[in-house]
Amino acid sequence: MRVGILGGGQLARMLAEAGGPLGLDFDFLDPAADACAGALGRLHVGPWASPAGLAAMAACDRVTADFENVPAEVLARLAGQTAVRPPPLAFAAGQDRLEEKRLLEGLGIAVAPVAEVSSRPDLLAAIERIGLPAVLKTRRLGYDGKGQVVLHSHEDLEPAWQQLGGHKLILEGWIDFDFECAQTAVRSADGEVRCYPLTRTLHRNGVLRLASTPAGVSADLAARAAAAATTLLEALDYVGCLTLELFAAGDRLIANEYAPRPHNSAHWTIEAALTSQFENHLRAVCDLPLGSTEARGVALMFNWLGAMPDRNELLRVPGLAWHDYHKEPRPGRKVGHATLVAPDQPALGSALESIKPLLDRETAALLGEFANFSRTSSATT
Amino acid sequence: MRVGILGGGQLARMLAEAGGPLGLDFDFLDPAADACAGALGRLHVGPWASPAGLAAMAACDRVTADFENVPAEVLARLAGQTAVRPPPLAFAAGQDRLEEKRLLEGLGIAVAPVAEVSSRPDLLAAIERIGLPAVLKTRRLGYDGKGQVVLHSHEDLEPAWQQLGGHKLILEGWIDFDFECAQTAVRSADGEVRCYPLTRTLHRNGVLRLASTPAGVSADLAARAAAAATTLLEALDYVGCLTLELFAAGDRLIANEYAPRPHNSAHWTIEAALTSQFENHLRAVCDLPLGSTEARGVALMFNWLGAMPDRNELLRVPGLAWHDYHKEPRPGRKVGHATLVAPDQPALGSALESIKPLLDRETAALLGEFANFSRTSSATT
Repeated sequence: MRVGILGGGQLARMLAEAGGPLGLDFDFLDPAADACAGALGRLHVGPWASPAGLAAMAACDRVTADFENVPAEVLARLAGQTAVRPPPLAFAAGQDRLEEKRLLEGLGIAVAPVAEVSSRPDLLAAIERIGLPAVLKTRRLGYDGKGQVVLHSHEDLEPAWQQLGGHKLILEGWIDFDFECAQTAVRSADGEVRCYPLTRTLHRNGVLRLASTPAGVSADLAARAAAAATTLLEALDYVGCLTLELFAAGDRLIANEYAPRPHNSAHWTIEAALTSQFENHLRAVCDLPLGSTEARGVALMFNWLGAMPDRNELLRVPGLAWHDYHKEPRPGRKVGHATLVAPDQPALGSALESIKPLLDRETAALLGEFANFSRTSSATT
Repeated sequence: MRVGILGGGQLARMLAEAGGPLGLDFDFLDPAADACAGALGRLHVGPWASPAGLAAMAACDRVTADFENVPAEVLARLAGQTAVRPPPLAFAAGQDRLEEKRLLEGLGIAVAPVAEVSSRPDLLAAIERIGLPAVLKTRRLGYDGKGQVVLHSHEDLEPAWQQLGGHKLILEGWIDFDFECAQTAVRSADGEVRCYPLTRTLHRNGVLRLASTPAGVSADLAARAAAAATTLLEALDYVGCLTLELFAAGDRLIANEYAPRPHNSAHWTIEAALTSQFENHLRAVCDLPLGSTEARGVALMFNWLGAMPDRNELLRVPGLAWHDYHKEPRPGRKVGHATLVAPDQPALGSALESIKPLLDRETAALLGEFANFSRTSSATT
């Protein structure tokens, strides 16, 4: 069976790593000739709508994506020729922050207060209603904190408008959260849903830096996160893995956004779940039985940004799994990750002690913050 | 870093699967255009000594092999141009069963009684000394039970001589063993040795069918197996993973043969060790720190021969990891394997109960035999 992937980045690469042992072969369509998944299948280089690229994708038994912003019309066209999973609708709704929030709200999943902003008067009215601080975001093409500005006071309005005013925007209320978490779940074509254990996450400047499981939350909160993801998967008639990002504030869970693809917060599932998110995504997409989403021990994942750190020291740490995405270094770019696995929290804690001296100062500081479960505030993800 | 692999079979494929996340890239040299590792790197098709193939290997930062019978002169020539690991000596000694046995014996590692056989009178003299039953084996190019005949009585001599008489031969005494096991270990260029937990194995017609860990042996026996492998690695100034196959008979361990490469008996390490044999082989070959060889839970591996079984039922079993080698079906061919992992023996036992009805009759029968730890006799591996 041949799987076409729209996008050839690290998520496509890890999909191919998981899919090879299942007997699957891969084609990738990506605008970049150096797309890092390329070595693991046939890479078709071209724009999303290139006729040759689309023909290659249409020739595959299944088409999926490693990028949520593939144009909806490309997905719709392919859906007329082969099985596109997740369904194009799941991409379309997620590509517009306003539609996404309204979809979630309509399903009874709590979201931050939100207002459409098309003009300066709209913005002032929205601030009047929602209050400050708040976050001004583009409706489309935002990810990893791109396309958004935090408004702390009225003085921030003019610079924010200068930066984003040309786009369709929303204003979102600021969420004063205790911590962030992410619920990954998978749904098969015949409607079976399986949820992974909830992941605790830490972002900085809108970019995921650390993720851990278990999330250290109450059974009730975990059950509500799983129920929200399940509701969403069912509403979208979804097939594949999806991650719902959430803020936890006191006893409340507030949904931020969802990603209709494997997600950075669940990379730990490669080593520390019985079936990884990548394998389960492919199992669902290819009509294979879903695998167990049960955890194997506990895990903490570090994202490597900009350039890979020196592996020679870090590889000495027992239980540290290395993931180099084969990408050229570039400031802020996600070039790899590492997951530390251990049988239980005390073992993980002592392994972390041995890792700390090997980390750059910023990552070490984030780790300290994460370990403290301290109260932080930011909605810029 | 670019790693050249002599051979592009399933071991090369799994090396590439393990090496990609370490940031490594791969070239393969294989006589077969459909070598199954080909999709995961650059495949150079040609005989082992082809100038273009050798040039491609020599251009790599490291060269290793997935096949123990790569001609020693090819390895020696490459060793003059780049780093060949394991060392060519380890291949040369292992390619001749007589030299291999003498090497092991010289290191104080017990082996079966053995005699060189160049003629019929040699054979009669050898039988006189060693007794029957015994196994007549070609000195070179044997693997998976190929090139060997069991002699139960004098009536078996003539057919055996007709079959093998044109080759250089040895006669090996029959070992009346309780069970078979395999010790996999890895050694770094600076001399550090790490041993995996001992694996219990089951062969049929010379081909590995099942492997499990832990082996269920005494700490003393396990320590002696690890000591034997360590002695061998040190004597060979070895770099990489090696597996020593052993017979356990009462309190004794008798070495059968070693493989200077990743080995079928240690495939379970992919899911059930902190670092797989494939990753540790590459870490050693590439001068990266060795990873932990500690087990994560318990595991049982099934080899799939001839053709892959129906994955649609087996993939439902929680903890079953699937490995399709992307090879064309052919009677007796190793086309894939599956590893069942569980946190402990009771959990593994109940998972096995759910698997049994899904297995072909032969595999189910082998599983029953394996579970019984029954006394079996065969030295034809």
